[in-house]
Formats: sequence, C-alpha cells, structure tokens
Amino acid sequence: VLPSNPSFAIVGSGAIGSYYGGRLAQSGLPVHFLLRSDYDHVRAHGLKITSIAGDFHLAPSHLNIYRSTADMPKVDIVLVTLKSTDNPALADLIPPLLHESTAIITLQNGLGNEDHLASLFGAHRIIGGVAFTCINRLSPGVISHTDHGHIHLSDWYLAPREHTGGARSAASPTPNQQDPSRAILLAHLFTQSRIPTTPVDNILFTRWSKLTWNIPFNGLTTILDVPTDQLIATPEAIHLIEQIIQEIIQTAAATGIHLPPDIAARQIRLTQSMGPYLTSTQLDRRHRRPLELESLFLKPLAVARLHEIPVPRLQMLSYLLESINNATSKRTS
Amino acid sequence: VLPSNPSFAIVGSGAIGSYYGGRLAQSGLPVHFLLRSDYDHVRAHGLKITSIAGDFHLAPSHLNIYRSTADMPKVDIVLVTLKSTDNPALADLIPPLLHESTAIITLQNGLGNEDHLASLFGAHRIIGGVAFTCINRLSPGVISHTDHGHIHLSDWYLAPREHTGGARSAASPTPNQQDPSRAILLAHLFTQSRIPTTPVDNILFTRWSKLTWNIPFNGLTTILDVPTDQLIATPEAIHLIEQIIQEIIQTAAATGIHLPPDIAARQIRLTQSMGPYLTSTQLDRRHRRPLELESLFLKPLAVARLHEIPVPRLQMLSYLLESINNATSKRTS
Repeated sequence: VLPSNPSFAIVGSGAIGSYYGGRLAQSGLPVHFLLRSDYDHVRAHGLKITSIAGDFHLAPSHLNIYRSTADMPKVDIVLVTLKSTDNPALADLIPPLLHESTAIITLQNGLGNEDHLASLFGAHRIIGGVAFTCINRLSPGVISHTDHGHIHLSDWYLAPREHTGGARSAASPTPNQQDPSRAILLAHLFTQSRIPTTPVDNILFTRWSKLTWNIPFNGLTTILDVPTDQLIATPEAIHLIEQIIQEIIQTAAATGIHLPPDIAARQIRLTQSMGPYLTSTQLDRRHRRPLELESLFLKPLAVARLHEIPVPRLQMLSYLLESINNATSKRTS
Repeated sequence: VLPSNPSFAIVGSGAIGSYYGGRLAQSGLPVHFLLRSDYDHVRAHGLKITSIAGDFHLAPSHLNIYRSTADMPKVDIVLVTLKSTDNPALADLIPPLLHESTAIITLQNGLGNEDHLASLFGAHRIIGGVAFTCINRLSPGVISHTDHGHIHLSDWYLAPREHTGGARSAASPTPNQQDPSRAILLAHLFTQSRIPTTPVDNILFTRWSKLTWNIPFNGLTTILDVPTDQLIATPEAIHLIEQIIQEIIQTAAATGIHLPPDIAARQIRLTQSMGPYLTSTQLDRRHRRPLELESLFLKPLAVARLHEIPVPRLQMLSYLLESINNATSKRTS
C-alpha cells in the first residue's frame, strides 16, 4: 500500500523535522512542512542545514511550507516531529492530512507517543520511530546536525500491546494481517535519502535503550545546566549515571524488555565521543519552554511504580525537573 | 573551672556569632568579636539586631571588636561560629585565645566539627553545640532573627568516641573525670542571657536530629532555589522529604542513635510554622560562597557508606550540590 514515491507531511518543523524532512525533499520526494514561528523566515530564506552527512540548502522556491495543516494536501506519510509536550494538539492537526491508508510515523522522544496517536487514529496507521542524533536549531530555518543521525522504525502493531507484556519473539506471528513490510520499505527509502534507517521488531526495545541515555543525561544536564562533556568529567557523575541506568534496565526488564548489561558503559562511551553537547531538555529550560517530562521521565516512572521496581534516583530526577518546569512556566506566565 | 563571669571570644561574627555573642554582651558578659569584612561598618555603627526575643543595638563604644585573634585577649570560652567551610583556618585562629582551661564551643552545622577541634586542641576543651534558629545577616552589622533560637550543648568527652559506636546510656560512667557540669553551667548562663539552652547527654543525637532538617531542606532549596514554604507546597515534595529523612534515620540508627520515628512529620510541621525562609546553603549559593557540604552532606554520606546503609537520595543530593558548588567556585575564580 506504500507508493514508490510517497508524499510526506512534516508536523513540527523544528530541528528534527527540518533535518529529516529536508533530507527527504533533497532526494526528490514531495514533502510538505508545517511551520509556526519560523514560517516567515523560511518563506524568505529557505532551510539552511549544516550536517556531518553533507551541508545543504533548500531554497524557498523548492519548499512546500504551510502555516496550517488545513491548507496542506493529504499525504501518504505523516512524520510527527513536534515535541511530545504538544501532543494535545495532534487530534486537531493531523486529520486534514489523512487519506485511507496514510501512515503516521512518530519520531518523538520517550514513551507513550505511539499509544496517543493510536488512540486517535488507529494502531494500524502508526509507525514508531526513534532518532539517534545530535541536532539543534540555531535560529529560524538554520539547523546544525553535529553527530549520528540514524533511525529505528517499527510498525506499532508489531509491538507488544502493553509495556507490561513480554517482548514479542521474532518467530511469533504478527497480531494482524497488515502489510508487514511498511517499516522495511520506509527504512529503505529513508536510507536512500541519506538517513540511515533500520527496521526493528520491537520499537519499545529501542525506546527503552534510548531512555537509558535521555533519563540520566537530559535529566542531570537540565538540573545542573552543563554540557554533556562537563557532566561526565567526574567519577561521581559516572557512578550516578550508571546507577540511574541500572534503575531503567530493571524497569524495562519488568516489562519483558531485556537491555544489554553493558548499556551503561556504552552510553558513557557514546557521550564521550559526542564532545560538548546541550541536551534538548536543557535547551528547553534555557529558553523557558515546557520540558518534555511526561514521555521521558513520568511515563517510565509510572511503569516502574506499576511493577514495584524501586527507582529512587529516577523519582528524584522527576521531582526536581517537575519543580524546575513549574517554576519556569510560572515565570513566563 | 568555669568562672562565674566568663569571658568570650566569638570566632566568626556572621549572623549566628553576632546574634549569640550580642546576647551575651547585652547581658553584661565580656565578649570579644572577631570580624573580617564587616569590621569597618561595625566599628562605625555597631551591631543592630532585630529579634523575635526583643530587638537590641550594641553601640560601637560597647563592643570589643578585632580584625585578628592575635590582637584579642585569652578568654574562658571560645565560641566558634565560622562556617564549617572555614575549618582549615581554625588551627591558626584559635591558639592566641587559649589559656589552660579555655573551653571551645562549636555552634557549627553538621558532623565533624567537634572532631576537628578536638584533634587540634584536645577533646577535653570541646563543647558541642547545636543552634536551632532562623537567623540571617541582612547587611554588615545588621542581623535578623525571625524564629526559634534555642541551643543544645554537651561536653564532647561525654559523646560516644566514634559515630560508629552505640549511644552512651545515661547510666554509664563518663569516659574521664572532667568537670561534668560545664555544659550545665553554660546552659544556665546562656539562658539567663535570653538564649534558651538545654544541656544534653549526647550532642550527636541532636546533630543527627538537626540533619533530618538540613539535609532535605538545605539540599532541595539550594538545588531548586526556592524558599522553604514553596518547597513544601506539593505532596511530591513532602513525599521526597520523608524518604530522605528515612535514609538519615537509618544511617543514624546504624551508629546507635535512634531518632523518633515521627521526626519527618515533626520537621514538616516545623517548616510549615516557619513561613518563607531561605536556607543558609541556598543563600551561600546565591552569593556564590562555598557551600557547607562537608559537614551537612558528605560526612553523613560517609557514615552511611561505612555502615552500608543504602542512601540513594542523599547520594544524589550530595552529587548535585557538589556540582553546583564546583560550578559556582569556577565562576568566581
């Protein structure tokens, strides 16, 4: 059901949406971008992207940009790249973009985004995606992609129904008869567009893996307001990060997802390779934007509570971040 | 050995030293104040103290103030009210003040101050003190005492030798034949000077009790930079504070000090009664002064480690505060 030259709508043209949408447009696919605050600037100057995979510029004449999804055509693929704090807006934003077989990919952070989209538009449409990338929006229409960039994709109907269930074994039958190759076809298309992409069996495995980075690194850098390389400069920090990751490993294991035992060491080596980096949550704090707490911290905490896994460090991180978030919101109101 | 009209040296005339030294001077005792940054201002204007126990002013003509302990007379009692971060200076500061039977009272926060003084000047001289008070220095020579104010005192040779030992039972003999009534006499003298003071058997019981306030309240208000009344405004905060206090109760118990099980509820009620209050550590952060981490957080953490008590929250508080302290020190250097 996926056409060979599918059309895309990018819902949320921040750093992630502009970069990945830009790559798809650069490779000649029809891509339609929803923009809000940056609309006028991109209308005048286009998208300018510096990237370790090659810089590129999309001129205004080559861009389809819109202020509202009501003005956009129906597309084959909706790519949701809004921050998860904007999830309440999706019920209104997405319907104008859907034809009967439109698929919806979420590249949002953390847990709960697929469930939210599935509850609104049906699980059969949803493709879970996780982007491993260091990418920032420097100014309107100006994106800097400094490291990594690969994506994992998986049809959501392939994932275990609940976080509480066991991981689906590779041999078990798919829960229904949807086209099993949709994520595989998209992974191929993305990879051709210079977005290295791997189709995976269970996106929740990928999500929990990425949470072992986001929870300690986004959490601690946001509280302390330091770049990742400064954070990992002391043995005390490394020790605390390892202990936080152990809490996540135990929580994931309670849902049947068994992360590799050396994942803490791997995440620390990964971070060492990244150089100085400001996490998205930390940047949100600096700019007094709402923090992505629900999907990155509170849902994992709720899973731990459900399974009675002791997670004192995750709980304290969550409390401190919620307090910071409330204080910041107050200041801006 | 304590004369009826003893002389005092106040080593560290910040909020605590100025207030308690001021009360002793107000009651007619010979008090000698060591001042540093505030010397010139107090020389010109004296000490102005607003207090729930009665305001008072000590005119320059009624104050004995000094820039250096080398200029001060030997005294009967040295009252150490420097921040514990200044402990390395005490080896040089105190000797000029000592005659053969000078006693040294420490009113400093947290664990380890008596041990430090005892190692320098002999355990027989040392009297451990804990002040329960809400007191701030508003500007040079201007002190505001807004709540509480009572003191516990105990001769240090009465305390268990190690934090690792069992608490001394009331019936056991004192470890040596020092005058057992020194703290009792001083408590009487202080109380006559409008400083309600109780002599206690084991000052470590008092110190651990006070730590159940300082660790959660100084810790969290410093990280979040909120006054105590805002901190306790949410059930999540109260729950976290209770869990931190449980870690301290368990650590103290491992040293033989059994705090009352309702101490968490008591500390929360106490805090509710205090109204908006900025903790000393939080004020130190705001003014980019070194934080009192060693005595308030790191020594208790070391005791927990020694006894293998799991204290994940105390450990994370300590890590975050050390990071904040290092960042602040860097900025000022």
